Amino acid sequence: MTGKHPDLIVQQQEPFNAEPPSERLIASDVTPNEWFFVRNHAPVPTVDPHGYRLTVGGLVEKPLHLSLEALSQFPKFTVVATLACAGNRREDFLNVKPVLGEVPWGAQAISNAVWAGARLADVLSAARIQPQAGHVAFLGLDQVQQGAQPFGFGGSIPLRKALCEEVLLAYEMNGAALPPAHGFPLRAVVPGYIGARSVKWLKNIVVQAEPSDNYYQAHAYKLFAPHIEAATADWGRGLMLGELQVNSAICSPAPGATVRSGPLDVRGYAMAGGDRRVERVDVSVDGGRTWLDAELSGGGAFAWRLWRATVTLQPGSHELSARAWDSAAHTQPEDVEKLWNFKGYMNNAWPRVHIKAR
Amino acid sequence: MTGKHPDLIVQQQEPFNAEPPSERLIASDVTPNEWFFVRNHAPVPTVDPHGYRLTVGGLVEKPLHLSLEALSQFPKFTVVATLACAGNRREDFLNVKPVLGEVPWGAQAISNAVWAGARLADVLSAARIQPQAGHVAFLGLDQVQQGAQPFGFGGSIPLRKALCEEVLLAYEMNGAALPPAHGFPLRAVVPGYIGARSVKWLKNIVVQAEPSDNYYQAHAYKLFAPHIEAATADWGRGLMLGELQVNSAICSPAPGATVRSGPLDVRGYAMAGGDRRVERVDVSVDGGRTWLDAELSGGGAFAWRLWRATVTLQPGSHELSARAWDSAAHTQPEDVEKLWNFKGYMNNAWPRVHIKAR
Repeated sequence: MTGKHPDLIVQQQEPFNAEPPSERLIASDVTPNEWFFVRNHAPVPTVDPHGYRLTVGGLVEKPLHLSLEALSQFPKFTVVATLACAGNRREDFLNVKPVLGEVPWGAQAISNAVWAGARLADVLSAARIQPQAGHVAFLGLDQVQQGAQPFGFGGSIPLRKALCEEVLLAYEMNGAALPPAHGFPLRAVVPGYIGARSVKWLKNIVVQAEPSDNYYQAHAYKLFAPHIEAATADWGRGLMLGELQVNSAICSPAPGATVRSGPLDVRGYAMAGGDRRVERVDVSVDGGRTWLDAELSGGGAFAWRLWRATVTLQPGSHELSARAWDSAAHTQPEDVEKLWNFKGYMNNAWPRVHIKAR
Repeated sequence: MTGKHPDLIVQQQEPFNAEPPSERLIASDVTPNEWFFVRNHAPVPTVDPHGYRLTVGGLVEKPLHLSLEALSQFPKFTVVATLACAGNRREDFLNVKPVLGEVPWGAQAISNAVWAGARLADVLSAARIQPQAGHVAFLGLDQVQQGAQPFGFGGSIPLRKALCEEVLLAYEMNGAALPPAHGFPLRAVVPGYIGARSVKWLKNIVVQAEPSDNYYQAHAYKLFAPHIEAATADWGRGLMLGELQVNSAICSPAPGATVRSGPLDVRGYAMAGGDRRVERVDVSVDGGRTWLDAELSGGGAFAWRLWRATVTLQPGSHELSARAWDSAAHTQPEDVEKLWNFKGYMNNAWPRVHIKAR
């Protein structure tokens, strides 16, 4: 029981990285476990749930060693949250200029699930945080094969976020135990942040003054300006990614499709980062000269919103584009060329799909 | 002692609305009181500090009536915070299409100050919030002359924000009592939100389940799509503004300036909304084809960052442009035309300044 559907689009076999086909992605507001995108940096570890212990240490008065049984004694909370990879929509960057050594994600390195578990805030409260605390670091049980010796995937979030009610130590995904590929038996779920901060197979939590020095916080997952190149980058100056931005994708029709002229349903998803909400999605068939309002699905504070708009097409070639707006009135920038960066992160340019109507 | 400098650019005399000249705005990281932009919706009320009482009611167990003396008994906190009007940079919209009945702000309806006072969270804690609470509404002592009878300017913020440590009931601005034009004797300061939520001359605070039904929350300060017009707008569908987005302006050189060819200092400000930070400012002399990194001033979590970049100009006509990035990797959209809305709010398109080098 790996929890992975055989029709996932596999981007990498080992470590396993895969995304659902786009029509499947928007088939339901909550993504079934087997269709949820998978982003791993190392082989999936096999964890014995009976012997499992989560340790909580660092700047706390009372370090903890918690079994799954002990974790289940904390009040159980449920959060509907969308996770997305910082590399989602990288494919469009690749059409501008190569991005080396990264998974060539399409627009489906994103999914939405109902997570349940203990609140991180409750566990930190039991451990009694010391006043110098500024960040909460997570470390996974997986073993990344890179450099001199293997190490666990890790990352951190600011204490301010860690204390928010939506941040979970989750042991359930869509009403069942976490599948192995998604972090069994326990993972962090940090809604509104890049997926990399929702560390899977959680081994320990360290409360500390500064961000994690794990490779995936201190080095990878940094955003650079378009003119910076890998060979000469000053890694200390990159933007250390945390919250996601507003973003959207057109999932139907498919690029290159030939459709009938007349009315056409255009569908996709939109999401916002932090605790912002998706407020509006605009759809255009004339490059943003005029816009149509899309209809949006429900969408809680930390969930994406699926959208749909009906455009009317004359026979000929067309470019469909879209832009989402969040509750802070952010919208998406227009051109992917001006967002390109050598790591290929955080593409939130307008999605554009070219089709023909006959 | 009105606290207003005579060289402010007056946009409206009554109610008084004014902004500092742009060179003055960026002369210091903290804006002196007399240069701070002024945004009023009604005449400045005269408040007797001895008779003054703040009431706190609604969904609380223990309604409060607080004198200034009682407010001074709460722990005093200081926050450096930038306030900006939702209509800042409206001027650029006016070049696209008229915006009727609104103050024609330039790019200086923004300023930065050191605020001190009680934390709203501490006062709400003393009043003991009931579980149904969702929003905190503010009402001012000013009297807006509009409609059948005068009413106080008001607005609300979500409870989640109201409980954040940066939200103050401020009685000091830059180390002195609030000037009358800025809310004497008490105002809300809601860092990261549109200035309208930092209600001045605070009369009462009501904890409630829903956002305020005050005109300035339920009707004004809503963002609509470019194709929506005033006459036919469905006011229930507008985006109710709250958090600010990432934004920036070029404050020097001035538009239309003639400068010497060779190296030129370009200067401005950048800001982020919510609890996001300004992470980077890019400056371009070729319409965004290539970018230069600007140097940034310090900037706390809720403060703008002043920036400076040196560009090199050949003789001829040039367009300078800029874009800021926040900690959630949001950047500014390119074209003001595609952001235009009939109320003229939230222009965060790239600032562009046309100059000549000889």
